[in-house]
Amino acid sequence: MKAPLKEWDRIIIGIDPGTNVMGYGILGVKGKKPFMIAMGVIRLSKMEDHYMRLRRIYDRVQGLVEQYLPDEMAIEAPFFGKNVQSMLKLGRAQGVAIAAALSRDVPIVEYEPRKIKMAITGNGAASKEQVCEMLKRILSIPADSILPELDATDALGAALCHFYESSRPAASVGACKSWKEFIARNPGKVK
Amino acid sequence: MKAPLKEWDRIIIGIDPGTNVMGYGILGVKGKKPFMIAMGVIRLSKMEDHYMRLRRIYDRVQGLVEQYLPDEMAIEAPFFGKNVQSMLKLGRAQGVAIAAALSRDVPIVEYEPRKIKMAITGNGAASKEQVCEMLKRILSIPADSILPELDATDALGAALCHFYESSRPAASVGACKSWKEFIARNPGKVK
Repeated sequence: MKAPLKEWDRIIIGIDPGTNVMGYGILGVKGKKPFMIAMGVIRLSKMEDHYMRLRRIYDRVQGLVEQYLPDEMAIEAPFFGKNVQSMLKLGRAQGVAIAAALSRDVPIVEYEPRKIKMAITGNGAASKEQVCEMLKRILSIPADSILPELDATDALGAALCHFYESSRPAASVGACKSWKEFIARNPGKVK
Repeated sequence: MKAPLKEWDRIIIGIDPGTNVMGYGILGVKGKKPFMIAMGVIRLSKMEDHYMRLRRIYDRVQGLVEQYLPDEMAIEAPFFGKNVQSMLKLGRAQGVAIAAALSRDVPIVEYEPRKIKMAITGNGAASKEQVCEMLKRILSIPADSILPELDATDALGAALCHFYESSRPAASVGACKSWKEFIARNPGKVK
């Protein structure tokens, strides 16, 4: 579980960007098995200045990318929100996190919260606590571990969701948005 | 007007971030007089991939910052939009542009479109064409110049608006959000 970074076959960073707290989780894959490498939160609520918060997100995400050298980044990205103001703020937080990954050439995928919950617990309406409990079991995290906030487990959930999505045999089918795309990706399967 | 960069007392980059077209304008200040150094648009609509668009914004804004070494960045930032979806997209576009400036330590200020129109034309409901015409006059741009799209003049307008806001004697008053802030900034004025 504490293997040096180069011993992992694949590393996925999960991000749950928010304007008050940003969660992150680092997932390492060895063979076909996922492990938790690290997780945590970046607290932003103490900073009054909006740009300071965005800068903090940018710097920390870039720092995590440099530290763990992930192959991909998975973002938990709600597509709907309460109001336009909060969506603009959320979009900015997502934007700086995305920019930090793009600046280091890390490809990005995003998943809706419902999709992540479904992938981890089998229930798209699961609570954050349920997601956390399932992650402990799946990733063999000792039951008595002191875990950071649920924003961190949410982020780790995004990374694990991406691991499942990208490693199941039908991944290329599931991820296709259109029939045209499916044909383009799977020339041998269409006759 | 074509002075080398080091001869300007101050350089302001204006950005009008959008998900289809992003406008930019570079304003140079010499003494108390503003001049246009450059303006243009970054076309994004041809790129289908959302992340490619965000990457393009990030790279181009960072490139402009490296090329013109601005002292500040002014962003045209609408606070209201049609729906949460478009605001999330706009927020992301703003976020990557902001990240590009933050990554080069350029401070950011933002202005609502209405505020920019008011500063340039005296009418908060002015059309983009009216803003463009006024910019031509104020910045002595030859009438027969071939101008890029109106997104570029909008961006230049944001830069000029910031120049006005930050250089008028009462700037510190205008920018204060509260009486407390005013007192803190102007200890000598309150007895």
